[in-house]
This record gives sequence, C-alpha cells and structure tokens, in this order.
Amino acid sequence: MTTALLTDMYELTMLDAAIADGTVSRRAVFETFSRRLPAGRRFGMVGGTGRLLDLLRDFRFDEADLRFLRDHRIVSEATAAHLADFRFTGTITALPEGEVYWPHTPVLTVHGTFGEALILETVVLSVLNHDSAVASAAARMVIAAQGRPLIEMGSRRVHERAAVAAARAAYVAGFATTSNLEAGRSFGVPVAGTAAHASVLARPSEREAFAAQVAQSGPDTTILVDTYDIAEGIRTAIDVAGTGLRAIRLDSGDLLVESRKARDLLDSLGAPDTKVSVTSDLDEYLIEELQGAPIDIYGVGTRVATGSGAATAGMVYKLVAIEGADGSMRSVAKKSTSKTSTGGDKTVSRFEDGREVWTLDGTVPDGATGVHETLVDHGDFLAQDRAGTERARQRAAAAIAALPPRAAKIAHGEAFRTSEEWEQA
Amino acid sequence: MTTALLTDMYELTMLDAAIADGTVSRRAVFETFSRRLPAGRRFGMVGGTGRLLDLLRDFRFDEADLRFLRDHRIVSEATAAHLADFRFTGTITALPEGEVYWPHTPVLTVHGTFGEALILETVVLSVLNHDSAVASAAARMVIAAQGRPLIEMGSRRVHERAAVAAARAAYVAGFATTSNLEAGRSFGVPVAGTAAHASVLARPSEREAFAAQVAQSGPDTTILVDTYDIAEGIRTAIDVAGTGLRAIRLDSGDLLVESRKARDLLDSLGAPDTKVSVTSDLDEYLIEELQGAPIDIYGVGTRVATGSGAATAGMVYKLVAIEGADGSMRSVAKKSTSKTSTGGDKTVSRFEDGREVWTLDGTVPDGATGVHETLVDHGDFLAQDRAGTERARQRAAAAIAALPPRAAKIAHGEAFRTSEEWEQA
Repeated sequence: MTTALLTDMYELTMLDAAIADGTVSRRAVFETFSRRLPAGRRFGMVGGTGRLLDLLRDFRFDEADLRFLRDHRIVSEATAAHLADFRFTGTITALPEGEVYWPHTPVLTVHGTFGEALILETVVLSVLNHDSAVASAAARMVIAAQGRPLIEMGSRRVHERAAVAAARAAYVAGFATTSNLEAGRSFGVPVAGTAAHASVLARPSEREAFAAQVAQSGPDTTILVDTYDIAEGIRTAIDVAGTGLRAIRLDSGDLLVESRKARDLLDSLGAPDTKVSVTSDLDEYLIEELQGAPIDIYGVGTRVATGSGAATAGMVYKLVAIEGADGSMRSVAKKSTSKTSTGGDKTVSRFEDGREVWTLDGTVPDGATGVHETLVDHGDFLAQDRAGTERARQRAAAAIAALPPRAAKIAHGEAFRTSEEWEQA
Repeated sequence: MTTALLTDMYELTMLDAAIADGTVSRRAVFETFSRRLPAGRRFGMVGGTGRLLDLLRDFRFDEADLRFLRDHRIVSEATAAHLADFRFTGTITALPEGEVYWPHTPVLTVHGTFGEALILETVVLSVLNHDSAVASAAARMVIAAQGRPLIEMGSRRVHERAAVAAARAAYVAGFATTSNLEAGRSFGVPVAGTAAHASVLARPSEREAFAAQVAQSGPDTTILVDTYDIAEGIRTAIDVAGTGLRAIRLDSGDLLVESRKARDLLDSLGAPDTKVSVTSDLDEYLIEELQGAPIDIYGVGTRVATGSGAATAGMVYKLVAIEGADGSMRSVAKKSTSKTSTGGDKTVSRFEDGREVWTLDGTVPDGATGVHETLVDHGDFLAQDRAGTERARQRAAAAIAALPPRAAKIAHGEAFRTSEEWEQA
C-alpha cells in the first residue's frame, strides 16, 4: 500500500493547475517550522523524521490510487499520467530526530521542483506534528523523572497506529520501555508489562491471581496490588512471590502517600529491593510533584501519548523560495498579520551555548555548526537503520543534557530562544 | 498484516497465566465505558465501532507475530500455540456508532471466554477512544454551525493514519466533507479542497495564481484571497473567475470582521452568490461566536482532528462478570476510591426522553428500547457496508436532533445524564 493518498486533496488540485501553467517544474524550497510552542513550553523536540523517511519512500501513486483520483475527477488525465511516474528527485534536510527546536526554527527543508515538494506537505506534517508532539511531552517527563525509568503505556488511549508511533517517539525522548508490542517489532523499542485488575478480578481471590502470575513469570515480575486493599495486597504479593519480588504497582489513590506507605511496608516485610512502580494519569507535573516519593518506576499512559495537552506540534509547511522566469530564486512569505513566517532558503547553525543563527547564503558562521542533516539527496533516500530510532534516542539524551537550566524546567515559561532573539544576535 | 500486535504486552502475559491456571476458558463479560466526559462536555458520541469490526476480523496471530512473541520470550510455547489458533468466538454488542453516550454508559460489551475477551482490550479501546474523541468534538461543531457545512481538514496536524479515521469520525458526526483523500477511498467520505498560499506565492502575482486555478477548475472553485491584501484579493478573484465564482476563502485575521467586509465587497462586485468560507483554528466556540457572520462554509482542522482539547474519550475496558468454579456468573468490580465502576452484565435501554436504564437480568423495561446492537454473534462478524459509515452518519444526525436543548449547548455544563440519575430513576 502506498502512502500517496494520505494527502489533502488540494495538494493535487494545486498540482493540476501547476502542471497546466508550467509552475510544476520551477525550483522551490519548502520549510517546516512551528510558529509557537504549546503554551508554557520551553522547548520542542523533533520526532518522526526517521519514520517519515520510510513513508516518503512509499509515496508513489499505484493503479488503485490513480483509479480513485480519476473516478472522482480530482485531477486531469495529464496530472494522472504525471503522478503515475512520480518519484521524488529533490533533497530533504532536517534537524536530527531527537534534537530540540524553538519557535520558527526550520525543522525540515525540502528542495525540489514546486510540484514534487508541494504534494509531500500533508504526510510530512502529519508525521512530524504527531511524533514531535509526543517527543516534546515525553522529553519533559524524562527531565521530571530525574533518571528514574518511565514506561510508555498510552496505546489504548489513542488511534491504534498512532499508538505505535507514540511509543517510538517516547522512546526516542528517553522513555525506557513501552507496552506496545508492535512498537517492539517495528522499531525495536523494548517492551514491558505488568498485569491488570482483570487478572485479579477473574480469580476467586487476589492470592490465586498473584500465584498464577508468579507461576508463569517467577518473582521477576510486577504485581498490581490495589484491586482491593493495598496493604493487604502487598502482604499477599510478598507472601506469594517472596522478598525477591521485582516490583509492586499502584494505580490509584494519592500516589505520594500510598508510595510511602508501600515502601515502608515492603521494607518491614524484608523486601527492601522490591521496587515501587506507579501509574494513574501521570504527566510531567505529577512526576515532578512525586520527586520526593520513594518511587522507582513511572508508567505514563494518556498524557504522553496525547502530547500532555498539546496533541499536535502545530508545524506548518511553507513555500519560502521559488524560481522565477529568469531562473533566479526569490524568497517568498505570506503577508498576514496573525501568521508570520520568514521567507528564504535558510541554513540553520547553532553555537555551543545553544544560540541559533540562520543565513540565506548557505554559510555557517565562525564558531557555529550547521545542524541540518541530509535525509534525501537528489532523490537518493539515505539508509536508516531501523528508522534510526537508537541514534535519535542518543541525540535526544545529548540534547536534553545540553539544555540550559532555564530551558529544562517543567514549570511554564517562555520558549528558551525565540526567532526574534536570533535575529538580534 | 494482522492487528494482533496493536496490543499491550500485559494482555498476553496475563493470557499466559490464565492458560496455565485454566482461567482462560471461564466465561467472562468485559465492558467499555467512560467514567467521565471531558470537562464541560454535555454528551459524548460513539465513533469507531464500524472501523473496529474490520480490525477485529484481522486480529489473528500469523507466523511473523508469533516469531516476535517467541523471540522476545513474551509468552510460553503453550500460549504461542494457543495464539496460532486464535479466533474470537464470542459476542460483541455496542451502542450504534453515531449514538450519544453519558458517563458510565456501557458503550460496548464483549461476551466470551476470559482469554479471548481479555486480549482484545487494547485495540478495542484505541479505536473507540480515538474515533469517539473526534466524533464527540465534531458533533458539537455541527451543532454550533447550525446547518452550515463543515469541511474537515485536520489531517496534517495528526498521525497520518489517525487522520483517516478522524476524517471518517467527523463525517459520521455530520461534517459535510474532508480534505483527506484516503478517507475518501477507504470509507467513501466526500472529499473537498481549495488552494493554499503556496499556490499564490509560487506565481509572480496573485492574478496569475487565480488564473491558473480557474483555468483548471472553472469558476466552480474556492479561491484563497488573503495571501496579500484581502480586498484586493477578492477583486482579483471576481475579475478572473467572474461573478459565478463558487467561493472565496479567508484564513487569517478577525473572521467576524473580515467575513462581513468580504460579503459586502462581493455583493458590491455583483457576486451575491459567491460564498464566503473561513478557516483558521476554528473550533465549536469560535464557530458559535461567528453564528451572526455572513459565513457559508467552515473549514476545521486541528481542533476537530485532536478532539477539541480532548484527544481521547478516556474509555476503559473492564471485567464486569466472570464464571465461577460452579459455572455461575459473578459480578465483579475494582474497589478503588478514585476509579469507580459498576459490576455486572448490563442490558442498556433508553426511554424516548433519553433516560437510560441498565438491568442485570437481560430485561428491557416497559416503554424503553434496548440500545445495543450486535456486531459479532458467537464469532460471526456481521456484515458492514463500507464500515457502516453512512448508517452511522444517519444515526448521529438523529441523535443530535433528539438531544434535549440543555444537552445541545456549546457552553460548558454538566453531562446531560449521569449514571447516578439513572440509578435514581
């Protein structure tokens, strides 16, 4: 199955008009960026570029795609013939996945003909907006957790395929594992799991449920102890699994209070090495509140998979330069009061202190480093090892470590750097 | 490709334990419901059941699935053998797609063995939580639009496959069209489109861009007039397309002010039939504010595809009854202070005034009607015509029309009916 119809209709009707008047073959530059970060966020994290590359490889129009377009008279015969031979021949550069971005940072740039770059808009934005929304939220949770491992377990709250991408994006940002099996298979994300209340409720007693679980997994498992009475559940868990039990899980109540009681009880039962894991609508704010609690593992569901209140990164894909009739490139930008953008084919560089500079002449200022990497070079898709997931994860860890303290705060604040600041720099 | 690994790992480790101790074959009832609606919402709308049915048909474990599970030692050999033969043999009933629900309304009920019902949890919830979140938000926008057509155009803001499901859910709720081509192909949703700023910016002048568009589409098209100066754009659009132009689109600025100016200008240019369509971060609140404006068509993107601030419907899937050793069914529910649920295999009925009643003995009270329909009958998947999209859309229109005035308000309020009220009734 191709990815070609994961596209807004107007991309193809615009292509139709561009084929008719010859604009289709003009050289063009499109840029992806966010005008602003979600309210209170101090940085964004790029997610999805590795995954995007595979989708762009499959961006071809097969017979079934073309039949739909013809049957619904969406494009002319000339355009259908053009699409039948479609193959992206341009160049795509982007911030490495896992890197941080600010408002107006050029995140991904497409150089190509107007026609070929235009029609990638929807799929580029879908992937980057979703995966960056999750990575950006997940990165804040990773910061709040201060080194304690996080399990992503939001699959059931979001679209079944978005769930797989969300698990990958959270892992890129620094989550330790996911509950999503397909993310394990497709992207090599380590998978983890415990047990649900159904497992307890299905048996005549909690003891029988715990015994069934331990019989299968041994004591290297996590037992959910809050179906009935938590203290009783913990005593039964240790009684059944022994003091070598890996972990207990709490999924309700005041987690600050309950985790302290659980820790004390486990210690008094001679199980000081049994870990306390907690779940239940956690997000970066709750994780920060729980920093002083004796919690070893956080399980995060809804809030990470839905971007912690910002389900989309709000990136846009804008034409910033186009070839004129004389063959020269001209910078373009919409002149709207409420939606600003900056024209021009930008080279993005950063200094070691994080300052970002754009140039329009392709140069990198002294002491700075160009930060875009090439994903597609004149139509050649560069090799990715399993969507580059591990590499992106390493980049994210380095990017988080390099954040200045005021950007790494969970409390709401201003974006670390705005484009205005760069322009003054 | 199967859908079997779109599943949380713990479903399969719990299955593993259930196979070992025999719980796997106990008869069980699982129920899907929301404990609460998103803040301020007065009703929820069921989305996704038609789409779910196709995914459940493909919920089989093929060789590749089993290899992943074996390689990662997620399940025992006995469980892998069990999964190789997996075929759902139970019964699934649900509220019809497009119907409204309240907190704690049993939306979908699975009767089957504990094992077969247990492992459907993740995929059932993913589909219902996503599609119902979009349908619920979309239904409010449909109410706010008071009969004016809405175009769904949020694909670029969300995961590329979630976008297709979101377009379908918005259409079910009453949107007129979508920009998403794959939703057109997969589900028969009518597709629509206009043009983007890139189309204007790519040409030397707005006039040339409009001329290229009209040359392809004729005057039966929508011209985007706000790239530079709106009044100038409208004059050029009518000049190029004639007074028979279908519509102009505004995508920035104060839409109340700009739509009035645009309407007046179009009228003064002799184009009273040219429609005014508006886009730009619309949601149900803005649409309601614009009710007095001379607007003919609303295009809604981000806010409908992300559930207007509630990206998930928050549904859960809970064991409510299980067969005991004596063969009798026993009602079960978790005893937690913060997460209430009600045990028992419920028959859901409604009276004409909307009141909802549950019974545990399978009866429907006099004067009420049972509202669940059967999707899967003892393993037989009932036929769906194109995922039942048109049927669901008709149901949604009827459900919205039947909402009492206080439930059909956009302003924040209480859910129309709560389970407490039902229990008192």
